[in-house]
Order: sequence, then C-alpha cells, then structure tokens
Amino acid sequence: MQRVLIIGGGAAGMSAASWIRRLSPDMKVTVLESTQMVSHAPCGVPYFLEGLFDDPNLFMTYEPSFFIEKRGIDLRINTRVKELNIKDRHVTVEIKDKVESIDYDYLILATGSVPITVKNDGTERVYFVHHPAHASELRKALWSLNKIAVIGGGILGIETAEALSVKGKKVVLIHRGKYPLNRMVDEDISSFFLPKMISEIDLRLGEAVLEVRDKGRLVITDKGEYKVDGTVIAIGVRPNSDLVKGQLKLGVYDSIVTNEKMETSEKGVFAAGDVAQSFNLITKQSDWVPYAPVANKMGFVAAFNVSGIEKKFPGVVGTMITKYRETLVGKVGLTSAEATRYNFKIKEALVKHKTRARYYPGSKDIWVKLIANEKDSRILGVEIVGQEEVLGRLDVLAEAIMKGATVEDLFFMENAYLPAVARVWDPLVLAARKIYAGD
Amino acid sequence: MQRVLIIGGGAAGMSAASWIRRLSPDMKVTVLESTQMVSHAPCGVPYFLEGLFDDPNLFMTYEPSFFIEKRGIDLRINTRVKELNIKDRHVTVEIKDKVESIDYDYLILATGSVPITVKNDGTERVYFVHHPAHASELRKALWSLNKIAVIGGGILGIETAEALSVKGKKVVLIHRGKYPLNRMVDEDISSFFLPKMISEIDLRLGEAVLEVRDKGRLVITDKGEYKVDGTVIAIGVRPNSDLVKGQLKLGVYDSIVTNEKMETSEKGVFAAGDVAQSFNLITKQSDWVPYAPVANKMGFVAAFNVSGIEKKFPGVVGTMITKYRETLVGKVGLTSAEATRYNFKIKEALVKHKTRARYYPGSKDIWVKLIANEKDSRILGVEIVGQEEVLGRLDVLAEAIMKGATVEDLFFMENAYLPAVARVWDPLVLAARKIYAGD
Ligand SMILES: Cc1cc2nc3c(=O)[nH]c(=O)nc-3n(C[C@H](O)[C@H](O)[C@H](O)COP(=O)(O)OP(=O)(O)OC[C@H]3O[C@@H](n4cnc5c(N)ncnc54)[C@H](O)[C@@H]3O)c2cc1C
Ligand SMILES: Cc1cc2nc3c(=O)[nH]c(=O)nc-3n(C[C@H](O)[C@H](O)[C@H](O)COP(=O)(O)OP(=O)(O)OC[C@H]3O[C@@H](n4cnc5c(N)ncnc54)[C@H](O)[C@@H]3O)c2cc1C
Repeated sequence: MQRVLIIGGGAAGMSAASWIRRLSPDMKVTVLESTQMVSHAPCGVPYFLEGLFDDPNLFMTYEPSFFIEKRGIDLRINTRVKELNIKDRHVTVEIKDKVESIDYDYLILATGSVPITVKNDGTERVYFVHHPAHASELRKALWSLNKIAVIGGGILGIETAEALSVKGKKVVLIHRGKYPLNRMVDEDISSFFLPKMISEIDLRLGEAVLEVRDKGRLVITDKGEYKVDGTVIAIGVRPNSDLVKGQLKLGVYDSIVTNEKMETSEKGVFAAGDVAQSFNLITKQSDWVPYAPVANKMGFVAAFNVSGIEKKFPGVVGTMITKYRETLVGKVGLTSAEATRYNFKIKEALVKHKTRARYYPGSKDIWVKLIANEKDSRILGVEIVGQEEVLGRLDVLAEAIMKGATVEDLFFMENAYLPAVARVWDPLVLAARKIYAGD
Repeated sequence: MQRVLIIGGGAAGMSAASWIRRLSPDMKVTVLESTQMVSHAPCGVPYFLEGLFDDPNLFMTYEPSFFIEKRGIDLRINTRVKELNIKDRHVTVEIKDKVESIDYDYLILATGSVPITVKNDGTERVYFVHHPAHASELRKALWSLNKIAVIGGGILGIETAEALSVKGKKVVLIHRGKYPLNRMVDEDISSFFLPKMISEIDLRLGEAVLEVRDKGRLVITDKGEYKVDGTVIAIGVRPNSDLVKGQLKLGVYDSIVTNEKMETSEKGVFAAGDVAQSFNLITKQSDWVPYAPVANKMGFVAAFNVSGIEKKFPGVVGTMITKYRETLVGKVGLTSAEATRYNFKIKEALVKHKTRARYYPGSKDIWVKLIANEKDSRILGVEIVGQEEVLGRLDVLAEAIMKGATVEDLFFMENAYLPAVARVWDPLVLAARKIYAGD
C-alpha cells in the first residue's frame, strides 16, 4: 500500500487529503498537523476578534473526527514535524513530548505561511493574527487591553485595526507605506477609503517601525515612539518552508518551486498552498499568492497528480479583496504601479459610478480602475472599491484576464442588468469603454 | 453636410445619437421620438408601480433639453414616424396634427419593441407595462383598482405582479407555462423562488388565457374565468419593425436582420436595440435579445460605423436577470432545456451554497446550475438564484462563455475571497468542479 504523507492540515493539506482518499481508496493518507485544528479558516480570525462570532469550532469546515471517521484519513493533530529528510523519504515528528519517525512514498508539503516579525525585546505583549488555533487566547489578551499598536497597513493590518476599533479599542496603525493597502491598489484609489479610516483610527503613514520594546508596550519608529498596552505585528507572512531549506528548490520569498502538477524539484514530493510558489499569467514570472482559494485548488491539483491523474494548476493573476467597515477594496492582476514596474506600457481608466439605478433606493458608490496593455489592449488589472457587488466584479476580471480578454471583450460582455442591483452601463463596461472608445 | 436620421429616442437611439455627434461633429443628427421622453428606462416602470419613486423624470438619463443644447442633437419629441421609404431615403412624420417629410443620408432604426396582446373586446381596463412615458397614467389607473389579473409569468409579469402585490393589490397571475420564468430557468430551479411567490400571489400555472372580456374585467382561460377590476397583459414583446416590413430583411420574430456592423440589408440603413436581430454565440444561430445593455451597445456600434469607424457587435449569449422580492433570478446562455433543444449533449451541476462564511452574519442561500457541453466541456449556460452577489456571478459567466471558457477554466478562476461576502469555494467554482472532477 502506498503511503501519502501530508504536512499541514490547513486548506491545502485537507483539500489534498480528502481528494486522495476519494481518488485512491488504496492509498494510506496521513496528515500531520501541529495544532488541534484542521481545515481551518485563518481568514475568520479578524471577525472573531471583532466579536462577530464566539465559537472557535466555526473556524473549522470539518472537525478532526470527521476526517478520521468519515473520510478514513490517518489524521494526527497536535503533531509537529521537527525534521524532514526528503531523500530518505522520512520525517521525524514531535507528538507532545514523544518523538516518532514516519516513512512515506509521496509527500505533500502544505505548511502554509508564518508571520514576519520586527525586532523586539520579548513577546509578552506582542501579538500575531495568524492561526485560528490561537484565536481564543489572542482575543482574550487583546480585549483586555485599551490602546493597541497595529504594525502594518496591508490586508491583515487593516482587518485587525478595524476589528479592534469596532471593539472600542484605541488603535494606532503604523504603516511604512504612503497609504494603506499600497501593495494592493494605486494611490489614487486610496482616497475612496482613506477618509473613513482616518476618522476612526490613528493612522501613521510613511513611518517605519524600528523595534518594539518593553515586551510590546513601546513602539519605536523612525519618526517617534508610541506607548501602548500591546502591539499586534501584522506586516505580512512568508512561506513556511524552513523544514525543506537546502533539500528542495526554493523561489520567490523562499516559497517552494513546483511544476504545474505542484510537484517540487524532488519526484513524488509536492507542495501546495501558501508554502508553494506560483506562476503569474500576466507577468509570465514566478509569483507568490498566499490566499485561500489558491491554496485549496493547489491542494486539489496535488491530490490528482499523486493519484496518477494529471491535472495542471494554470497559474495566478493575483486576486485580493479586503474591507474596511462597509467598504470593500479589491484588485485582480496588476495595479498601474505594478504594471509599470513590469515594463508594460499601459492605458488606464477610472470610473466612479453607482451600484443601482438612479431611481432605485439604496444605491452606493463604486469605483473601478481598469488597466490595459497599450499595445494589444489586453486587460492587465482592475482595482475596485465599493459597498456591494464588488466580489463578483472582481471575479469577472479574474476570468477575463485568465482568458486573455481585451478591453473590447469586456465592453461587449453581455452584462446582466436589473435596476435594483445594477446600472445599465455597468462600471466595468464603462471602464472598458473609456479605453476602447476614449470615453 | 451628411444627415443622420434616428427613429426612436430610447437606449439604442440616444446612445447612437450621442456617439455620432462626438465622432462626427460635421454630421447633422436628427432623432424622432414619438413620446415626450428620451434616453428613458422602461426597466424602472415596475418599481415606479411599486411606489419606490415618484418623479417620472427619473426615468430619463438626460432630459430632451440636454441632448438639444449640450449635445447639439436635432431632437424632436412627440414626433411619430408614420411612413418610411427606405429606397428613397425619406420619412413621413406626424407631429401632433401636422404631417412633415424628412430626407436623410443615413438611417438608424431604434424603434424598440411593442407589447404582444391577447384577444379582447376593448381596452378600457386593459393595461400594458411598457413605455415610461405612460407610467404615471398607468400607475394612477392600477393603484385605483383592487383585484388585478396579470397575464404572463415571464420577467415582466413577475415584476408587475410583485409591484402590485407589494402595493396591497390582490393579484391573480395567469401563466401558460408550467412554472414562472420558464423561458429563463429550468424547472428544478423554480423551486427556489416559487414558494414565496405562491404565498403572496394567486398563481395560476399551466393555464392559457383565451380572451379578455368586459373591457378588462373578465379573463377567460382554458380552465375557467376570473372576474377582476382590470387586467395587465404582460405576455411579452415583439420587435417594433412594422414600419420597414417589406423593405428590409426581417428575421427572428420579425426583428431586423443586420450584419456585425448593425447595418441592415440596405446600405446606409442601420438597426439597433430591441428592433434588431442578433447572433447567438453559443447556438451559432440568429437570436433576439431585447434587453437594455445589448440595446445600448448596438447603438454604440451603429454610431461608429455610421461615422466611418468600423466596430463590430460580436453577438449575444442571452443574459437575463429579474427578482421577486429579495430573491434574484438570472441566467446566462442556455438552460439545460434549451441546450437539449439545440441538440447539445450536456453535463450539468447544481450547487446549493451560502453567500458568506459559516461564521459571518447575514449569510444567504445561493443556487447555481451550470451547464456544459459534454464533448469539450465548454460552458453553455448558468442559472443562479440568490439574494446577494447574483449579478456579478452572472457577469462572470457572460464573460466566460463569450471567451469560450470550459469548466476547467471556471474552476481555476482565481476568485476573490473575503468571509464577509463570499465562500472560499465559490458556488461557481464548486459547480465547475462538480463537472470537471465529478464532485
Ligand atoms: C488573519 C488572516 C486572514 C486571512 N484572510 C484571508 C481572506 O480573507 N481571503 C483569503 O483568500 N485568504 C486569507 N488569508 C490567507 C489564507 O488563510 C491562506 O492563504 C490559507 O490559509 C493557506 O492555506 P494553507 O493550507 O496553505 O496554509 P494554512 O491554512 O496556514 O495551514 C498550514 C497548516 O500547517 C500546519 N503546520 C505548519 N508547520 C507544521 C509542521 N512543521 N508540522 C505540522 N504542521 C505544521 C499549521 O499549523 C497549519 O495548520 C488570511 C490569512 C490570515 C492569517
Ligand atoms: C417594463 C420593462 C422592464 C424592463 N426591464 C429590463 C431590465 O430589468 N433589464 C434589461 O436589461 N432590460 C429591461 N427591459 C428591456 C429594455 O427596456 C429594452 O431592451 C430597452 O429599452 C431597448 O431599448 P431600445 O432603444 O431598443 O428601445 P426603447 O427603449 O423601447 O425605445 C424605442 C423608442 O422608439 C420610439 N418609437 C417607436 N416607434 C416610433 C415611431 N414610429 N416614431 C418615433 N418614435 C418611435 C418609442 O417611443 C421609444 O421611445 C425592460 C422593458 C420593459 C418594458
């Protein structure tokens, strides 16, 4: 019997495990997960901090017993892999205090990502918003504080700051970039969500944190210092690939390099999810996109290939979405800053529109910025800010860009129109028209 | 100076007029519109009947004076074209009581559609929900009645019945089809919106109206008769092409045949909007899609070609959306019944899902039915029922189908995910997965 070993029981790992059991009933599938949670959703942690729900079991799609009893997976929670010997097909695991050794025929690395930290003198009151397994503890700690520094104005920092501010905390958000979400949208777009943030959060922009002292109670930046009750470090994550350093080929930010089948430089060894590198379909370069839908699909692809059915992960375009209060902010593909950095000559259009017909109650503002390649009018990216129907419009562009659509294609998309939920000239179509026809 | 004459000042006509003025400042553009309204939105009439707004000027994107003064269009409202002599490039118009004659170099027919009626003995209390120019009158009449028969269970009938029922009227909806919206979605899908309709409206399904008597107060069907205070006939529309019968080539339901440039069988004569035929990209056959986004884009294409800049209308896939109360119902492409009728061998998947993460408040049900070609897995259609984010998901499919996407493409679409507005396995992706991977 062939033995498949999966390290990490998150989105990618459990997606892979379930599919292999389905496709290959004869294979033995073992999953090693260092926490007590599997098939969990880190994406929910900010909303848990906000108090939108209280039951930490809701973080899990299924509980461990489901995978063991219903899906026949040899799932071992609270089991951390300490060492990995790829060539010898062998791992050393730590279960509570015991150390054990496991062999395998196929390996899937699905260890996710780990938070990046800043210099500090102790972590007593330094927090990271990361694994749902630690969410209850984290919430208890943060809710007991009054004034909290959040370091980082990316998706994670913004979602954390929002949650804490809604809970009545005094939040100082310190961000090195010129504006929040600057790795997600262009500066012109930030003006559509910034005022609301500024009204609720003490935003310190263009300010770099040098170190955190007093075990989390003092944040020193290049412009001053902040005395707080505790500090959340939310400056980003990196691939959790330390276990395989020196054993497998690593790429962007040390993510694990794979082919389209999610197979690494070592035959029979796969990587999926946040730990794996991916290929950007627009820039035609390696990329790293640590988001849940990608992780799930990579796990799916790895499972099929382990089971001997060829499936290929086609690559990524870089879809992101977050929200601040009522306002959703998202992008697909390249911002104009990114496109320029990748040496594209671009055409772009910015449209401010409404989400419903003039005469229909409840209409909201929506902004769409569309970026296209000057030469062939291929769409390179979109940025959208609005309060409803942002998700679907992002997905339209994800599909469009992945299918190589031009602004002409997007203009002629036969969009749905109902006054209660749309404008007859959809903002996507208008943005495409601006580039396609000059207005 | 070249003279462009446009008949009809609706979506298609005014879109064309505005673009020609922009592209060809030297051309004289005359628009003849039989009512007092232009660039109007018939789509808003049901919501006006419901009482969601009261100002009929809101039906117009711009008022006539704007087009005359700001855009330099020779716009003549309250001016009906009585006769049209295509060969001689000449029309006879009726302005109030006067009759006048106008010559032209280019003609754009944008006369829209007209309601289909049933046999009746007088129309005193027989109503049609059609042109916004008559909406105030119509509303006054309908609001004064108590029990109203609505004939037709398509989009128009459903939207009208909803409006009147919300206004407290007793509505009997008589529909020949087996279930409402049967030309839009398959029967299995109807169970997701039918119960709510049945609880509020006296629905008579599978019943054909033979005639309306008593000038609107008695409806005779093949199963019985209904005494009511008035009757709304909403069984559909047909292309308003009577003016050109015998002069231009007509196609599906007598819509005007054009090429991709929207030019009819007669050089220099164009047709756009509800009066024009279109080409279905899935069935590769002529089709007729009388919806506003299509009308606008056809007007745009006609304008460019009249101005000597070649643009091509690529064709349609058949996107539709409506709602009953909170529930949106939409489709793109072919239903499975339609696909079968067109001799496609199909694979299909039905997914019931939620719109937000398990743990996020306010999540709603959503149903997605995906239809694909068995042979090459190309997507042929989608049907969606839900309460939020239905529009965008329809547009994803409009774009996907127009770009020839397969279920594999849709599965690997890098969808946006945020727990507040989505599921990590989006229902579209799940539906695609069901066909692509069997689950
Ligand atoms: C707070 C937060 C919010 C987010 N919000 C969103 C969002 O809104 N939308 C979105 O698309 N994405 C979001 N993401 C990203 C998303 O959660 C990840 O992309 C996704 O979880 C990646 O799945 P994965 O399986 O690769 O890794 P993970 O889900 O991180 O799972 C990896 C697992 O491996 C285990 N593990 C690691 N090392 C070992 C070891 N040595 N031995 C045993 N087990 C090990 C870990 O305990 C972990 O359970 C968010 C992430 C965070 C942290
Ligand atoms: C009640 C209702 C609800 C609708 N809801 C939706 C919806 O939610 N979504 C959607 O996409 N579509 C909807 N539609 C369809 C949409 O309104 C039409 O597709 C669109 O208006 C077509 O534009 P058009 O310019 O071709 O025709 P129209 O907008 O109908 O304009 C044609 C114009 O030509 C004029 N005209 C006709 N004959 C003559 C003549 N002989 N001389 C001078 N003028 C003439 C008419 O007065 C009219 O103003 C709805 C339609 C109705 C009636």
